[in-house]
Amino acid sequence: MFESSPPPSLPPPVLKDEVDIVIPTIRNVDFLEKWRAFFEPYHLIIVQDGDPSKIIKVPQGFDYELYNRNDINRILGSKASCISIKDSACRCFGFLISKKKYIFTIDDDCFVAKDPTGKEINALQQHIKNLVTPSTPYFFNTLYDPYREGADFVRGYPFSLREGVPTAVSHGIWLNIADYDAPTHLVKPLERNKRYVDAVMTIPKGALFPMSAMNLAFNRQLIGPAMYFGLMGEAQPAGRYSSMWAGWCVKVISDHLGLGVKTGLPYIYHSKASNAFLNLKKELKGIFWQEELIPFFQSVSLPKECNTPQQCYIELSKQVRDKLGKVDDYFIKLSDAMVTWIQCWEEMNPSPSSSQSQPLSLPTLENDAAIILSNGSA
Amino acid sequence: MFESSPPPSLPPPVLKDEVDIVIPTIRNVDFLEKWRAFFEPYHLIIVQDGDPSKIIKVPQGFDYELYNRNDINRILGSKASCISIKDSACRCFGFLISKKKYIFTIDDDCFVAKDPTGKEINALQQHIKNLVTPSTPYFFNTLYDPYREGADFVRGYPFSLREGVPTAVSHGIWLNIADYDAPTHLVKPLERNKRYVDAVMTIPKGALFPMSAMNLAFNRQLIGPAMYFGLMGEAQPAGRYSSMWAGWCVKVISDHLGLGVKTGLPYIYHSKASNAFLNLKKELKGIFWQEELIPFFQSVSLPKECNTPQQCYIELSKQVRDKLGKVDDYFIKLSDAMVTWIQCWEEMNPSPSSSQSQPLSLPTLENDAAIILSNGSA
Repeated sequence: MFESSPPPSLPPPVLKDEVDIVIPTIRNVDFLEKWRAFFEPYHLIIVQDGDPSKIIKVPQGFDYELYNRNDINRILGSKASCISIKDSACRCFGFLISKKKYIFTIDDDCFVAKDPTGKEINALQQHIKNLVTPSTPYFFNTLYDPYREGADFVRGYPFSLREGVPTAVSHGIWLNIADYDAPTHLVKPLERNKRYVDAVMTIPKGALFPMSAMNLAFNRQLIGPAMYFGLMGEAQPAGRYSSMWAGWCVKVISDHLGLGVKTGLPYIYHSKASNAFLNLKKELKGIFWQEELIPFFQSVSLPKECNTPQQCYIELSKQVRDKLGKVDDYFIKLSDAMVTWIQCWEEMNPSPSSSQSQPLSLPTLENDAAIILSNGSA
Repeated sequence: MFESSPPPSLPPPVLKDEVDIVIPTIRNVDFLEKWRAFFEPYHLIIVQDGDPSKIIKVPQGFDYELYNRNDINRILGSKASCISIKDSACRCFGFLISKKKYIFTIDDDCFVAKDPTGKEINALQQHIKNLVTPSTPYFFNTLYDPYREGADFVRGYPFSLREGVPTAVSHGIWLNIADYDAPTHLVKPLERNKRYVDAVMTIPKGALFPMSAMNLAFNRQLIGPAMYFGLMGEAQPAGRYSSMWAGWCVKVISDHLGLGVKTGLPYIYHSKASNAFLNLKKELKGIFWQEELIPFFQSVSLPKECNTPQQCYIELSKQVRDKLGKVDDYFIKLSDAMVTWIQCWEEMNPSPSSSQSQPLSLPTLENDAAIILSNGSA
């Protein structure tokens, strides 16, 4: 598993054959130069947005596949309509065609952050560590991640809950330019995030959160089918809500399936905010809709029979149509796209278990954790 | 409000006439010497546990009142039975007789911690800051406390929820000896908490947490009547679960009343673990009971008509009797003690509104926040 020779100062790449890095972009991915030490051993899936005739340059030495809109249309045919155009939501095409267990997705304006000691942060390694250790959604631990070195469950934490549950999502955050909405960026143009919070935590069951895909990893086997970024960008009334949409769907489905969602470390360094005025235009409808979406997602209930992410997602698509269709016709279209997405998923990921229960047991996670711990590198 | 002269290097004491510091102890409170710079301007309520004939010495210069068991019996009469003997649970007597808006309670083996820059942490000041700024229990913010300098709500946080709700509780944590249970201390006798996590966060609605009273502050007006530490110690079958019990009650009542519970900063330095073998004996029944208490508290539902902490607490006492009485007769006795506690509270805190709705509005909090911000000291 660790056949390549890493630079002597670095630990061996962790689970290199189990991870794909998915990058949506419209430009040359020169930012990879900064990540070379950490990403080079891994396979990249680059999803080119915008004009497919444009040539995207990838720095030498990286192992990658690149898909542009023509490829997406060719591979998915008429179902390609569920993949957004001119919006980073197109990244989910990469999730669809990956065959790996874990996905790390990152934006092309995100660079390597440093911890308070000045050490460069291997974001991918921290994400993997988060994903292969359990989550604790049923009870809050006041010393944060109880599985971290030097930490544990505190007095009063029920012993029966200390085994945790498998982790579906690891949500990383940002130094420098935070992932604010357009109104906040307009109000605070100079604000930079300088606070390094040395914590990873599970978001409790029942609590929703604003997921950002700038620096995000997940277990594709456990939650991949729910990681759909919706219809945004060109020909759609909304933008910049794709990761929010995915996050709300993923959280209610993770809660239902007994999976965990973590947030916190790792940090990346986010270099530039996009244009706040332009963003306000894109976000406008989302700002209003969001107020109706949150109560909807807070009250979603999935039937017990739904025990795969696919089944949950199809059920959710029905509830979106029934309850949110009244908010705007857009949600009828989105509900259809959710179904199309699952059809694509089933086609691209055929397996005897695809329409049945998928194994959600801890043992596989424990194996991965054992590999990592035995390498002492995560 | 700031009539006393603080040392020149310190900011003026914040809300000094609005805060009581409650300390349960069985020994001379010499630890206060270490806290002099931060605590001296405030009023202390010392609750002496154990032998009332023992003289507890308090360092010169502190403004305090001290109550021993004889005082408790004299003041509460037959109702004194609800105050525990030989357990730090007796601290809640101090909450009962305080007349202040805010309480900070701390154990006598807790000292001033230092932040990563080496600066001594004014724990009380941070607690006050936590209490006078709102909480956000209805949606998780991935950059932690959105009201903190340099932070805000991130993209995807519903705008309608950004006002927050009044904060009832500020739960601080510990460097050095963490508040572990006896089994964990037995397994990890050498573990010390060295990780400084620079965050304050709201525990989401619906999530329970293990509350520790070693380093705890709360708004007595908003939640005081629910801050009862139960029957522990002498003549009781359990110990070391008093703050857990209080925490579970406080959290479900705060959730019901639309109040917030925060955890995180400030840290204190916890100097010594109590004897793990002795603790195991004290905790034994609690370890088993806890497994039945958590599902109980997770499913508690309070009727809409209960809109004061007193009403909620009386209702909760009924559910404890009905549902937990089956687990052990102890909970019947505890249910009775919960009612006695509220009777004591009403007697000691008579007010026209004590059996009616108490004002839970933000304006008062905003006033306090304005005072603090205008002093630039919190």
